[in-house]
Amino acid sequence: MPPRTPTPVVSVDPSKRPLNQKQPLHNRWHPDIPPVGEVKEGDLFRVETIDWTAGQIKDNDSAEDMKKVDLTQVHYLSGPIRCCDEKGSPAKPGDILTVEILNLGPLAGDEWGFTGVFDRDNGGGFLTEHFPDASKAIWDFDGIYCTSRHIPGVRFAGITHPGLIGTAPSAELLKIWNDREIGLHDTDPATVTLAKCLHTRPMAQPPNPTGACLGKVPKGKDWERIAAEAARTIPGRENGGNCDIKNLTRGCKVHFPVFVEGANLSMGDMHFSQGDGEVSFCGAIEMSGWLELKISIIRGGMEEYLTPMGPSKLNVNPIFEISPLQPAYSEWLVFEGVSVDEHGRQHYLDASVAYKRAVLNCIDYLSKFGYSKRQVYMLLSCCPCEGRISGIVDIPNACATLAIPTAIFDQDIRPKKTGLPVGPRLISRGEAPTAKYDGTLETFKNPATSSSSVAEMADAAAQILSLK
Amino acid sequence: MPPRTPTPVVSVDPSKRPLNQKQPLHNRWHPDIPPVGEVKEGDLFRVETIDWTAGQIKDNDSAEDMKKVDLTQVHYLSGPIRCCDEKGSPAKPGDILTVEILNLGPLAGDEWGFTGVFDRDNGGGFLTEHFPDASKAIWDFDGIYCTSRHIPGVRFAGITHPGLIGTAPSAELLKIWNDREIGLHDTDPATVTLAKCLHTRPMAQPPNPTGACLGKVPKGKDWERIAAEAARTIPGRENGGNCDIKNLTRGCKVHFPVFVEGANLSMGDMHFSQGDGEVSFCGAIEMSGWLELKISIIRGGMEEYLTPMGPSKLNVNPIFEISPLQPAYSEWLVFEGVSVDEHGRQHYLDASVAYKRAVLNCIDYLSKFGYSKRQVYMLLSCCPCEGRISGIVDIPNACATLAIPTAIFDQDIRPKKTGLPVGPRLISRGEAPTAKYDGTLETFKNPATSSSSVAEMADAAAQILSLK
Amino acid sequence: MPPRTPTPVVSVDPSKRPLNQKQPLHNRWHPDIPPVGEVKEGDLFRVETIDWTAGQIKDNDSAEDMKKVDLTQVHYLSGPIRCCDEKGSPAKPGDILTVEILNLGPLAGDEWGFTGVFDRDNGGGFLTEHFPDASKAIWDFDGIYCTSRHIPGVRFAGITHPGLIGTAPSAELLKIWNDREIGLHDTDPATVTLAKCLHTRPMAQPPNPTGACLGKVPKGKDWERIAAEAARTIPGRENGGNCDIKNLTRGCKVHFPVFVEGANLSMGDMHFSQGDGEVSFCGAIEMSGWLELKISIIRGGMEEYLTPMGPSKLNVNPIFEISPLQPAYSEWLVFEGVSVDEHGRQHYLDASVAYKRAVLNCIDYLSKFGYSKRQVYMLLSCCPCEGRISGIVDIPNACATLAIPTAIFDQDIRPKKTGLPVGPRLISRGEAPTAKYDGTLETFKNPATSSSSVAEMADAAAQILSLK
Amino acid sequence: MPPRTPTPVVSVDPSKRPLNQKQPLHNRWHPDIPPVGEVKEGDLFRVETIDWTAGQIKDNDSAEDMKKVDLTQVHYLSGPIRCCDEKGSPAKPGDILTVEILNLGPLAGDEWGFTGVFDRDNGGGFLTEHFPDASKAIWDFDGIYCTSRHIPGVRFAGITHPGLIGTAPSAELLKIWNDREIGLHDTDPATVTLAKCLHTRPMAQPPNPTGACLGKVPKGKDWERIAAEAARTIPGRENGGNCDIKNLTRGCKVHFPVFVEGANLSMGDMHFSQGDGEVSFCGAIEMSGWLELKISIIRGGMEEYLTPMGPSKLNVNPIFEISPLQPAYSEWLVFEGVSVDEHGRQHYLDASVAYKRAVLNCIDYLSKFGYSKRQVYMLLSCCPCEGRISGIVDIPNACATLAIPTAIFDQDIRPKKTGLPVGPRLISRGEAPTAKYDGTLETFKNPATSSSSVAEMADAAAQILSLK
Repeated sequence: MPPRTPTPVVSVDPSKRPLNQKQPLHNRWHPDIPPVGEVKEGDLFRVETIDWTAGQIKDNDSAEDMKKVDLTQVHYLSGPIRCCDEKGSPAKPGDILTVEILNLGPLAGDEWGFTGVFDRDNGGGFLTEHFPDASKAIWDFDGIYCTSRHIPGVRFAGITHPGLIGTAPSAELLKIWNDREIGLHDTDPATVTLAKCLHTRPMAQPPNPTGACLGKVPKGKDWERIAAEAARTIPGRENGGNCDIKNLTRGCKVHFPVFVEGANLSMGDMHFSQGDGEVSFCGAIEMSGWLELKISIIRGGMEEYLTPMGPSKLNVNPIFEISPLQPAYSEWLVFEGVSVDEHGRQHYLDASVAYKRAVLNCIDYLSKFGYSKRQVYMLLSCCPCEGRISGIVDIPNACATLAIPTAIFDQDIRPKKTGLPVGPRLISRGEAPTAKYDGTLETFKNPATSSSSVAEMADAAAQILSLK
Repeated sequence: MPPRTPTPVVSVDPSKRPLNQKQPLHNRWHPDIPPVGEVKEGDLFRVETIDWTAGQIKDNDSAEDMKKVDLTQVHYLSGPIRCCDEKGSPAKPGDILTVEILNLGPLAGDEWGFTGVFDRDNGGGFLTEHFPDASKAIWDFDGIYCTSRHIPGVRFAGITHPGLIGTAPSAELLKIWNDREIGLHDTDPATVTLAKCLHTRPMAQPPNPTGACLGKVPKGKDWERIAAEAARTIPGRENGGNCDIKNLTRGCKVHFPVFVEGANLSMGDMHFSQGDGEVSFCGAIEMSGWLELKISIIRGGMEEYLTPMGPSKLNVNPIFEISPLQPAYSEWLVFEGVSVDEHGRQHYLDASVAYKRAVLNCIDYLSKFGYSKRQVYMLLSCCPCEGRISGIVDIPNACATLAIPTAIFDQDIRPKKTGLPVGPRLISRGEAPTAKYDGTLETFKNPATSSSSVAEMADAAAQILSLK
Repeated sequence: MPPRTPTPVVSVDPSKRPLNQKQPLHNRWHPDIPPVGEVKEGDLFRVETIDWTAGQIKDNDSAEDMKKVDLTQVHYLSGPIRCCDEKGSPAKPGDILTVEILNLGPLAGDEWGFTGVFDRDNGGGFLTEHFPDASKAIWDFDGIYCTSRHIPGVRFAGITHPGLIGTAPSAELLKIWNDREIGLHDTDPATVTLAKCLHTRPMAQPPNPTGACLGKVPKGKDWERIAAEAARTIPGRENGGNCDIKNLTRGCKVHFPVFVEGANLSMGDMHFSQGDGEVSFCGAIEMSGWLELKISIIRGGMEEYLTPMGPSKLNVNPIFEISPLQPAYSEWLVFEGVSVDEHGRQHYLDASVAYKRAVLNCIDYLSKFGYSKRQVYMLLSCCPCEGRISGIVDIPNACATLAIPTAIFDQDIRPKKTGLPVGPRLISRGEAPTAKYDGTLETFKNPATSSSSVAEMADAAAQILSLK
Repeated sequence: MPPRTPTPVVSVDPSKRPLNQKQPLHNRWHPDIPPVGEVKEGDLFRVETIDWTAGQIKDNDSAEDMKKVDLTQVHYLSGPIRCCDEKGSPAKPGDILTVEILNLGPLAGDEWGFTGVFDRDNGGGFLTEHFPDASKAIWDFDGIYCTSRHIPGVRFAGITHPGLIGTAPSAELLKIWNDREIGLHDTDPATVTLAKCLHTRPMAQPPNPTGACLGKVPKGKDWERIAAEAARTIPGRENGGNCDIKNLTRGCKVHFPVFVEGANLSMGDMHFSQGDGEVSFCGAIEMSGWLELKISIIRGGMEEYLTPMGPSKLNVNPIFEISPLQPAYSEWLVFEGVSVDEHGRQHYLDASVAYKRAVLNCIDYLSKFGYSKRQVYMLLSCCPCEGRISGIVDIPNACATLAIPTAIFDQDIRPKKTGLPVGPRLISRGEAPTAKYDGTLETFKNPATSSSSVAEMADAAAQILSLK
């Protein structure tokens, strides 16, 4: 009989540096990063991961660490893991690697997480011109539930998942990535429509040896070459990667394309919970964690199941199956957005702009119930809210919706004939720790409201709080 | 005791022309289109609607009507309905009009619907360069379920909803719409990034007196003026309108901003079912139908609940509440897409491109199970599939997902180690009626597959079918 | 193409007497009641039904009609309908008749329903010694929702279903029924354990020509014979019948055994909504209604799928499939009961007693929130609450649970550290119309509370209300 | 900041005997069993439990251990735990103790469980006259999923829960229990209606010093007294206890009455999964496990929220809240049963008999798909099937239903026009380990089928298997 207790393949100690872990971690994609472990079809195995920043963000009440985060380092991944069939023969390029997520959770002894807003000049986020200051919220876990001293009045069950999981690229695929991303990076942002309204700068992140962590690759000429070529882990791509799909939780089965022998599966960036879009960028509840997994291999599965579309046969995407094990909220409040941006500009069928409007609408709405806008921005990044593309053909407007489960609040947040809570019925929820933006980029001032800019309002709020 | 049977406010006869209905219909947004009926808070009332094209599409096996559809006419709406409080005092600009959808369904005696693909030169759709030919699928309704002789092998329960419902714009709001949309319309498509890959042309639809239907407005100078100013109904906007939100079904409560006295609520474009995105444009299961409704008015609700964002205080969006009455599928197969288009081009955080890739991936996948790609394109437009914005911050890639409930198929469509159905296990589902594209615009040829273009493949398939 | 609008097979006019309907109704089970219509496999057909009492209960504020109801008449059924295959060949004994419920609802023009408690000496109910008085609640329908002026403060969506649907018994099966039920009827109630605590008397209802309604059977000798033999419709049996299964709603498929040629399908007793157990007996929201149906026949299906168990091959039960179209509430408050009755008596693994305790516990609990116990008794009969058999083996106690969805109340009914609503926070919900019990049977006095009997408390409440 | 990692209050080592655990276990209810630990409101704490038999059942392929199990020992519980408020003041009689189950699972290193059927002369079960032989199925856990080599072809996610959790009785309550249960025990089974058809004998389990395990009570006179008085843990009662409620899983909040100072909370008998009713008695998937918990105290909550009903103010039951975190299956096959037993005898409104028929119907049905009846009997005990009380007032028949989620099977188990799988399509699932009944009590022979008794059929099957 095979052992039933999951076999540890990668174990971590969050107090140690990524390269000092028992199995060294890595934070770049490259075919030449050697595997740190091996599993066979049918094995029940366990992988542990540290948080994506390797402990840069602390459990305290200051947002200075968030402001100064070093993003050249992210994301620290556990793996690569070489994947073989029952007889020990490795997965081959062209196969599908099916990974079943059988259970997962926060690391014992480290049951907390963080959500953050990055400074506009260091990372930014979906709404960075609205929220240029760095900010932070710390979350405590009560088993499946979480609460935050920085965003009081909400409690929800996490749909815990790895934000990042994927197979290693081949050299050919890596070149495709680098070519197209460097191309975009070198484009004048002024010519990219969305760059004007989606303020997550820069345009792309080309390979960057600074901050690179390459697992078992020994320092030397090879290290230099790999570090110069290796893709950053920020975006999701053909290999899966940082897709930040909030429903990829226990009970899911992901079918990955295999590009290198052994598949070289890596994962990390575990989220206790995330909202669709992960809007504040450091938006999920980031944590260290563990996963229990099983794999199987579909020989020749790429040709069988995944049609490439584009210049290369490698232009495919993973697919996955979800299970009936997700929290099933029954009542939702839904915010609509169409692709007219917050300056009144008309965009063409742009779901990103439409979703941005839906998110902005929701932030303003919820801020009427005692939360600061900054708190809501972070909340929408990490609570189990759903972002839908509702209409994508009704020229010129895409329509997107953001749905939040009403049960996560300790008050009824639906519109009522009797109006908003006022006076003693309105409970202030304070403000989250914030580090003021001291850069020079312009921030958004809403022409439609007499109130001052978000930044000014946040200042005022902070002042009031500091007087207490 | 008030009467319990819903009071008919707008009744239609699908065999009559829109202006010959008992209460004449309209197909433009304008504050000066007079109400055709009035309701009070607490009234339980009934509104009937014809299909959005007013009977242009027939229940037959040819797609010629789809190819030649006159889109200047759409969408035919029932209303406007003047909305008052219990004492008969009308809703005022600045109020919120809450509309509760208490029940709805297809019109008795007219229990069928259609899904279509428009010709690339006449309407197009989200994937028009992939599917330039017009096409059609007719659906039969079995109570809550639907089936199609043109897409055999699927059956699902509709999440029936009005694709279009909204309040009338004020003159000020109408001007904002026209200014921004004409601005976009006059832009060179070559400079609009998405226009290169979202082939639903033209860029926008400015006011157009041709085909205008203006309800009770008498022919004459006024008619001319209104027809020249009135906004087309294609896009969703600040007033709701054609948002095509598939979950806006029985049990929902929508909170609309009020821009004119009486709110002037209109609705139409009823869908037996729709997938998120309604990708093929004429994509839902379009039908005539009825709704049972109740309204209430939140006085001053816009300022209370809806924060404007943009140059005008009118730049708001509706919000809505959804109920526990939606079909609850428990198992889904999910397709991912990132914002690299099917030509391999890198886009910047573009959820529309990412969703397009997810849709293309799904079409190719399902076509391996006996359906034609065209059938799947229509199926994804109208079945209860979910389009999610999963990640919108991981530069440069947005990640979108398309989830389809596996239970709607008569076969197991999940990937398996044993591979796809082949030989006698593979059941061909034939092909939907198609009218060949005879225009000159380029269509997509997938460089990654040795196979010929979609159009050529469809031809081949059609030929094979005609031999039977 | 077959017609899409459902073909009416049985149509009713609620203002007419059962025998004066276009297709005369019946209220007994007998193989010799002739069919009033015929359907074929694949037909989409419509059946209308009147309420089970044929209009004895009126839409007013008095419970006198409830007190004096004539129960010899119930239930009035539509049918029998002869069921044939596509070629017109009838279903045969030994086949399975599959009936798909495609849609259903209240009859247009008659959108209301009633829930009642019968007098202890005329019908009774599950808790009749606790609630000996007759009582009544009238419900209004708002599309899928219902509210009652007699039980304010709750609103819920109905899981609408036919309380009674079944095939006709053969002569052999009818004899089995009559033998076993007359046997029980003739038993001394004192020797039947449950008879001491389940106060729905009498023990059984043998055939009774008084009140019989036999459809197309002409008055005469045959009528006399059939009326003397025909089974009452009260209990569910091998043919389905009055199973009162609350989830048998739109989207369900029921597989009935066929005992006579043509199956002779009948149905009625439509419920807008019902709680598991239908505890107050006239407990669902009773109404007139319509159903859209399709049938199919599994030839030889009884032997294939239904194993008889007992002395006869006819001792089988229907099975059914339920669909993902049920309201999906996400939060429940659950009451436990074990098989110790309210007198402290220990019963042996008795799920009925355990469920009775759970229901009593819930009534007392909810009565602390402003409702009268009588209101809650009726509410639990008709709202979508779930009654579960949790443990049936832990001698000597069966454990049953009653779960109520918290979302149906206009207040938070969960236990809290802050305690119950008191003072101005406690909103009285008045009392439902009641007709005092004037019989002589003993009623329950709770020895554990200092308060007087339920009947006395109800009196006191009624007096207070009449003073207003 | 309080520690976030749950504080261990009771830790176990499954390889050690119950009294040799760090905190000794107990298997009886008595107010004088001293607490082994203490927790305060707000503490996040962890309790570990061994399996209910303390390791009597082994992970092997023989059912001899099941046949010879010593039931005088069960159930081994962790606790009692003294419960205090934030200031350290203990819960008092009359309070409510709210216990929140924040997470739970199988013990690391011991990830397996067992389901069994007891011998008719040693424990029995709901269907013991149908299944007199002892039998066993071993389950492996894959994270949230389980599979069994003894029941191949099914896989499901567990709704993991403590089968037994409760507060300690006071001396007064203990006396009530003993009086009423000894009373029943001393009754002639022939006079107890249900005893004739619910073959879980004996009638009740009076206190029994044999096998008693009393935690920290030192051996001596006190031990003798307590062992002679202490209640067995088999049935659920006023304190909760062995309620076997399958939905009491992560995210639930249970409100227990408090009878002794400190509440003295105990728990055990953890189930990886259970079906409603736990029909085979050792029916859940029994395992060792851990729970993460939080408590709070509602002072005076019993009077506030729990109405006693019966001779004593102590005659109450716990209530609980369930969360949206349960597996949400969308498709079910449902079996009906009415209160006519398998001998054709008519019972009076008996939900236990009705449920027995529904279970028997389901066993026979599923046995047509390649499973042995014994396998199905165990499967229905442990898979997430739902047992409902549908109708409890339609004299003389109660109607109960048993619903099984179709997704847990590796084949489509719904009825079809095309009939059952036959020939190569029918996959045999073998048989579970069985130990033949060698007692003399009569077993059920189905008069309606020509086939021989279940026992004979099982023999035949076993013989066939042994030939392989």
